Amino acid sequence: MSLDLEVTRLRETVAGLHAELVRYQLVAWTAGNVSARVPGRDLMVIKPSGVSYDDLRPENMIVCDLDGVVVDGDLSPSSDTAAHAYVYRAMPEVGGVVHTHSGYATAWAARGEPIPCHLTAQADEFGGEIPVGPFALIGGDDIGKGIVATLSGHRSPAVLMRNHGVFTIGRDARAAVKAAVMCEDVARTAHLTRALGTPAPMARADIDSLYDRYQTVYGQPGTRSTAR
Amino acid sequence: MSLDLEVTRLRETVAGLHAELVRYQLVAWTAGNVSARVPGRDLMVIKPSGVSYDDLRPENMIVCDLDGVVVDGDLSPSSDTAAHAYVYRAMPEVGGVVHTHSGYATAWAARGEPIPCHLTAQADEFGGEIPVGPFALIGGDDIGKGIVATLSGHRSPAVLMRNHGVFTIGRDARAAVKAAVMCEDVARTAHLTRALGTPAPMARADIDSLYDRYQTVYGQPGTRSTAR
Amino acid sequence: MSLDLEVTRLRETVAGLHAELVRYQLVAWTAGNVSARVPGRDLMVIKPSGVSYDDLRPENMIVCDLDGVVVDGDLSPSSDTAAHAYVYRAMPEVGGVVHTHSGYATAWAARGEPIPCHLTAQADEFGGEIPVGPFALIGGDDIGKGIVATLSGHRSPAVLMRNHGVFTIGRDARAAVKAAVMCEDVARTAHLTRALGTPAPMARADIDSLYDRYQTVYGQPGTRSTAR
Amino acid sequence: MSLDLEVTRLRETVAGLHAELVRYQLVAWTAGNVSARVPGRDLMVIKPSGVSYDDLRPENMIVCDLDGVVVDGDLSPSSDTAAHAYVYRAMPEVGGVVHTHSGYATAWAARGEPIPCHLTAQADEFGGEIPVGPFALIGGDDIGKGIVATLSGHRSPAVLMRNHGVFTIGRDARAAVKAAVMCEDVARTAHLTRALGTPAPMARADIDSLYDRYQTVYGQPGTRSTAR
Repeated sequence: MSLDLEVTRLRETVAGLHAELVRYQLVAWTAGNVSARVPGRDLMVIKPSGVSYDDLRPENMIVCDLDGVVVDGDLSPSSDTAAHAYVYRAMPEVGGVVHTHSGYATAWAARGEPIPCHLTAQADEFGGEIPVGPFALIGGDDIGKGIVATLSGHRSPAVLMRNHGVFTIGRDARAAVKAAVMCEDVARTAHLTRALGTPAPMARADIDSLYDRYQTVYGQPGTRSTAR
Repeated sequence: MSLDLEVTRLRETVAGLHAELVRYQLVAWTAGNVSARVPGRDLMVIKPSGVSYDDLRPENMIVCDLDGVVVDGDLSPSSDTAAHAYVYRAMPEVGGVVHTHSGYATAWAARGEPIPCHLTAQADEFGGEIPVGPFALIGGDDIGKGIVATLSGHRSPAVLMRNHGVFTIGRDARAAVKAAVMCEDVARTAHLTRALGTPAPMARADIDSLYDRYQTVYGQPGTRSTAR
Repeated sequence: MSLDLEVTRLRETVAGLHAELVRYQLVAWTAGNVSARVPGRDLMVIKPSGVSYDDLRPENMIVCDLDGVVVDGDLSPSSDTAAHAYVYRAMPEVGGVVHTHSGYATAWAARGEPIPCHLTAQADEFGGEIPVGPFALIGGDDIGKGIVATLSGHRSPAVLMRNHGVFTIGRDARAAVKAAVMCEDVARTAHLTRALGTPAPMARADIDSLYDRYQTVYGQPGTRSTAR
Repeated sequence: MSLDLEVTRLRETVAGLHAELVRYQLVAWTAGNVSARVPGRDLMVIKPSGVSYDDLRPENMIVCDLDGVVVDGDLSPSSDTAAHAYVYRAMPEVGGVVHTHSGYATAWAARGEPIPCHLTAQADEFGGEIPVGPFALIGGDDIGKGIVATLSGHRSPAVLMRNHGVFTIGRDARAAVKAAVMCEDVARTAHLTRALGTPAPMARADIDSLYDRYQTVYGQPGTRSTAR
């Protein structure tokens, strides 16, 4: 596919996927964003900063290089652009990144507590606990570094950044959005579980077995949900 | 009705009923499914695996035999097909099966706690407590066996599978969907009740009386909600 | 207005008001109902039993006399008809009755706890605490008697029936629906308040002052929200 | 812009912004309102009292002077008009005011507890804790005085009025609505955080840094979210 066609397609994909963040109530006002890597290029497509989800269109998505410099687009890119760009530079297998402050997951992040795995749905998608990343200020590479340090070599496509919110990764933007949706769903059920008592334990071998199966058998051939 | 007509009708019913799981927010992404038995045949109609609810159509529903082998359909069937099939083989009175990970009900499942009956709505639909089934790995007959062992001889059309989620049964798919909706509603109210204190007790005789009446008087003649 | 015109108008009103129960998520499946008294007649208009909210139309509403006997309509009336009818017989100032199992309010009902008044919104609409009524079985006059005994001489247009749910009254059906909406809203905020600590006290004189003002000043002339 | 054109524009803006209160479920029935100052005039545009959000139109918005006296409009203005007017008189930098009883924020208000800052999203928008204002009766200047006394010299554009609800301010009505949306979002995450434990602390210097950056860098040039 030509670069132009690829970028056109990704502008549509990225603009459209924000509707899933809205549908699952993961975002308030403009506080969340999706990006996609342009395959084989040092480029990414990302949401403009502070623009309402209702107003997102393929044509107002921003194309940046992987240092976060705008290559195409009239608006300022997401204020989280540096974090997305760092992840793409450091993790070549990642094709999509999502950031939200979804409430249940962010509550675990605000306590600095990883979400322990007591649900088959969490074993399927996250392969175990959902980890906590460091507190980091916005604006430089610190958030990106914290994401990469936490998720490198970890099964989970989601990290709970301390006192902040959720970043998820995927082989493409849709997989990263799915991880963000499932992260909030799992964080909510884990919250409700612990609110009234203690979860029943799950054996490590069962978690491993569920994760392995989900990565290879679930869904349709060619659309497995593996992040990487 | 001819087999063709019956299957055509059930493809529409099963595809359409997934919208109720979405409407009542029982499912995230693709994590829940509905099936229906083809009356008088060793066949069932079920959701394809990993397909978005927005994309479900009568024509992409999958027809399987009661060993879970695909008889008609281009896509892979739900990864929970073996569990649905087991239930239809073991419980001839069941015409519909639903699976969700709805959050409040799944939180009770994750603690391994049955939902005690302190609400008239629960007495009506479930006839008492909603029971917990065993932990079981996906892929073989273990989940189906756990559902059948728990619900056989039990009034409840819903079982909370430990660390997993909800399976419900009904005389048809719509009744099973109703049981899934009411299970989450009751699980939520029971959660909210216990979060701030202790529920007022209900007498067993009152629960029995409510259950008996609901199975015979509620609704319109010919559409009582009895699961079996 | 002629009886025919009045009944036609109330069929539309009652059918349409159920959409508010759905909008505010006060009801699951078919578990809630609205009725209206036909002014100056011993008649009421009420929802049919077990019919989906999507399928409610003016023409399938049921007209009953105040003993609950169907006067006009092809379907069975709500299984709560006897309770509605009892209220209209005993409280001539009541023109509308609503029943729901909305979750937060029903949780207070399941604990048998009245909702204490710590919010100006509750003082406005309910004039103080929202009281608990007795446990009563469906099918005879017991529920109606419990509602009337609890609300007679009480400011609150809502009663929390123990282990059951909410009944509200109003000068017309719309006022009763408003009371059902505000009851759940107040029950939810009161729940959230107490979940993390102790509410700040409100002085009785302030509650009285707010209630008096709301009944006479709020809204547009001729549409004050007084239940009675 | 002529006064007529400005008022016409603000009638549209104010009527339309109420849809955001509904979308984010900050309001039940008619319990919340938005107003805007007419720039450079001693006038404001505000919601009519007790009118459903579905029925709001530019032409039924009410124009009042800054003593709350109706200048143009057939209906009674919001019963919170005196509070809005007081804020505009006392805080010339404020162009919009919003009032809600959104549940999570109101629960903090009912306990009389400020929301401590443990989230980057709260640091961004509120610059630290969200403060509690005094209990005040409706009808005179007491609520307005409480808002102004609490927010003057405070970074937060939101105040939690004790036992009552939320008032927010902004440089225009849209900014005040954003503050109301973010206030509930932050109040909810803070509630969920504390429900299961203790939030991780945030350094004052980090909160200051986030607040300063958000006021100057986030969003598009010319649309920064600074309240004042």
